[in-house]
Amino acid sequence: MLKGIHPLLTPELIGVLAEMGHGDDLAVVDANFPATSTALETAHGRVLQLAGASVPEATAAILSLFPLDSFVEQPAVRMEVEGAPDEVPPVQQEIQAVVDAAEGRHLPLGALGRHEFYAAVKHCYAVVQTTERRWWADVLLKKGAITPEGAG
Amino acid sequence: MLKGIHPLLTPELIGVLAEMGHGDDLAVVDANFPATSTALETAHGRVLQLAGASVPEATAAILSLFPLDSFVEQPAVRMEVEGAPDEVPPVQQEIQAVVDAAEGRHLPLGALGRHEFYAAVKHCYAVVQTTERRWWADVLLKKGAITPEGAG
Repeated sequence: MLKGIHPLLTPELIGVLAEMGHGDDLAVVDANFPATSTALETAHGRVLQLAGASVPEATAAILSLFPLDSFVEQPAVRMEVEGAPDEVPPVQQEIQAVVDAAEGRHLPLGALGRHEFYAAVKHCYAVVQTTERRWWADVLLKKGAITPEGAG
Repeated sequence: MLKGIHPLLTPELIGVLAEMGHGDDLAVVDANFPATSTALETAHGRVLQLAGASVPEATAAILSLFPLDSFVEQPAVRMEVEGAPDEVPPVQQEIQAVVDAAEGRHLPLGALGRHEFYAAVKHCYAVVQTTERRWWADVLLKKGAITPEGAG
């Protein structure tokens, strides 16, 4: 426990968030995602488990410290519902609200099909798995740079 | 780099600060301290190097996140000057000012003789070594507990 730091940010997770640099990607995934196997291919090399957290909760905790990349149009990307790529289920609407709140403006999520999303996770720096039971609750977060003055 | 986090808090150091619990001690030491050998006996097991930082700077960065223990009278302890235990050299006055600023009140440093201090560091959770060149710039910080409401 640290002053002002969200308790979902475990020692290993906060270290990983700090290790990541500009343009590195983090995946936050649901309980059914093949996270442990996929994480073997990431830079961190092993999955980070947040048992008890939903994806919107985990995303909010992460974005309290993690700046999103301002150099790309869609630094946060959701997994498309299979067969209904334009559908945005309630859990993704919650993730959208979390991203918007962290940014202080509406920042529309990008979208990738399920298999493209799986492929993208293999290139992530790390994978955070929650115990989120709702399907399609998976998001990629691209890290931004902190300005010399210190703001996100 | 993370939003609102002091850049001296490296990924490894921020993870260590988060791992520590109530009553665990952290040593912040000068450039001459036998930090690498002593750190072998600590829970973390290896020294954390902050090259370029002074002890007051490192202590200020650490205390931006690390709560001091409110259950003991002297959660921050300096190393006594050999042969002049009551002397408080300028670098220790700076450390005292950093502790006071972090706590928002005057919290007098405790003091240990050099060999007692060395012995205490072996029981620390971890050792942070700076490139502080001033002698007697060594401090022990005992971690406090964050209340359920979130304040230090």
